[in-house]
Amino acid sequence: MKKDDRGIEPFRRVRVLRVGRRDPGDTPDVAATEEPLEIRLHGSPFAVIMRTPGSDRELAAGFLLSEGLVRSAADIGAVEHCRHPHHPELHNIVDVFLLGAAARDLPAALAARRNILTSSSCGLCGRVTIDSLRIQAEPLAAAPTIDRDLFASLPDELRRRQSVFDETGGLHGAALFTPDGRCEVAAEDVGRHNAVDKVIGTMLLEARVPLKNHTLVVSGRTSFEIIQKAWMAGVPIVCAVSAPSSLAIELAEEAGITLAGFVRDGGFNLYSHPHRIRGV
Amino acid sequence: MKKDDRGIEPFRRVRVLRVGRRDPGDTPDVAATEEPLEIRLHGSPFAVIMRTPGSDRELAAGFLLSEGLVRSAADIGAVEHCRHPHHPELHNIVDVFLLGAAARDLPAALAARRNILTSSSCGLCGRVTIDSLRIQAEPLAAAPTIDRDLFASLPDELRRRQSVFDETGGLHGAALFTPDGRCEVAAEDVGRHNAVDKVIGTMLLEARVPLKNHTLVVSGRTSFEIIQKAWMAGVPIVCAVSAPSSLAIELAEEAGITLAGFVRDGGFNLYSHPHRIRGV
Repeated sequence: MKKDDRGIEPFRRVRVLRVGRRDPGDTPDVAATEEPLEIRLHGSPFAVIMRTPGSDRELAAGFLLSEGLVRSAADIGAVEHCRHPHHPELHNIVDVFLLGAAARDLPAALAARRNILTSSSCGLCGRVTIDSLRIQAEPLAAAPTIDRDLFASLPDELRRRQSVFDETGGLHGAALFTPDGRCEVAAEDVGRHNAVDKVIGTMLLEARVPLKNHTLVVSGRTSFEIIQKAWMAGVPIVCAVSAPSSLAIELAEEAGITLAGFVRDGGFNLYSHPHRIRGV
Repeated sequence: MKKDDRGIEPFRRVRVLRVGRRDPGDTPDVAATEEPLEIRLHGSPFAVIMRTPGSDRELAAGFLLSEGLVRSAADIGAVEHCRHPHHPELHNIVDVFLLGAAARDLPAALAARRNILTSSSCGLCGRVTIDSLRIQAEPLAAAPTIDRDLFASLPDELRRRQSVFDETGGLHGAALFTPDGRCEVAAEDVGRHNAVDKVIGTMLLEARVPLKNHTLVVSGRTSFEIIQKAWMAGVPIVCAVSAPSSLAIELAEEAGITLAGFVRDGGFNLYSHPHRIRGV
């Protein structure tokens, strides 16, 4: 993938603490860039998408086709990045101007959408969300700690509980573990955010939130939203089988959350607050 | 995962045509169930989530915690499935009643949300969406066809173009191929729906939609939304490295889209409209 025209790289350089690998220790690495893109229609906010920068105009056009707001190139007059020399964050805003019937039908289409509140794990621009989370949620306290080898074994324990995954290969898993490695709740879902909502929601309905001593294990990648959900529930440790995004790492750092990725084959990478893992 | 309390299985039995495997031919298989869940607050629609049935009450509670509408079990008065003996589709609706400050703050929270149109690849209940798509889009025409061995090789070609994936392990890929196997556009993103929107949006901006002769290749699983996006863009063939959901298969059948999954190691599974793959 080439750099996008704002000069933003599709990956970010990060520091990672490698544990249980041939090249252990603190080393440089890269993470896929995740940033919010706000799509505007005729200057008015329409949708916010968490995305990897690059091909933003194409992303906006494809999204509007999927949403039924445009049907062909003839419906699109212009797709413009907002630019300002002193406000580089404006590269995360794209304004789309429609033509003809698409422009004429826009007010009715927007009115229809306002009657259907759509689902989204992140409804806000990343920066705004991080700021607003700072108001709602304090960085999490230092405790608990968990043994390094026990920690490395948690994804295997999640897989043992993923019965449907074995049959269909189509489900994400999530589970909550105690510091001594006991699985308290596990869930599977076609949506990885749903699997996290299910396990946290189970504990919420049992009046056990905030989950100050738990580790959240997820079967896939870690996005901004996964860390946001962990923070809102007070979960101090997140353990993922695959890679985190750049914004997941930034938010985990800020939230005081210990974030591990590539937890497999007895080793893992630590991206933030490693102090909760004993023996590294 | 146990059956949910409506008796809905987390997977569905499907028929699949296996190609290039030790056990080729038409055989029974299972796919992860995907269905829309409408979350209501005090009887009013709040959000629609595509999910695997099961733990619906917990999913709704966890989702509302993530969204900041509740903070503890004390904020939740009741979480109820809608039930009606003659309308089984109501099992896909959960109504939540809040208490105390959460109930008092609800009107203000809803008003604030209405000013932020959030992103979602599917903003509508599945059944409603399928019906509304039928109005907007006709089932796709029979052409084109693509050679079986060429088809099986497309995911490898996508991987060769996924430069960032190799470095970070954190990105989904999507690409559009011609019937003779030429890759016309490829994209990577932390969000798999975004990667699809980027490649389709590229062609849209070049005034090349509908994409009547193209195959869409995606690096992961196939959800309802991926098929919805393909249909809106007129793409007749979808080729995925991993599993499809139950609703993806149903929508592909209806859209006239050829859907293949587990396209790897020279073989694949065909879930709908196999006639476009020559030699199977």
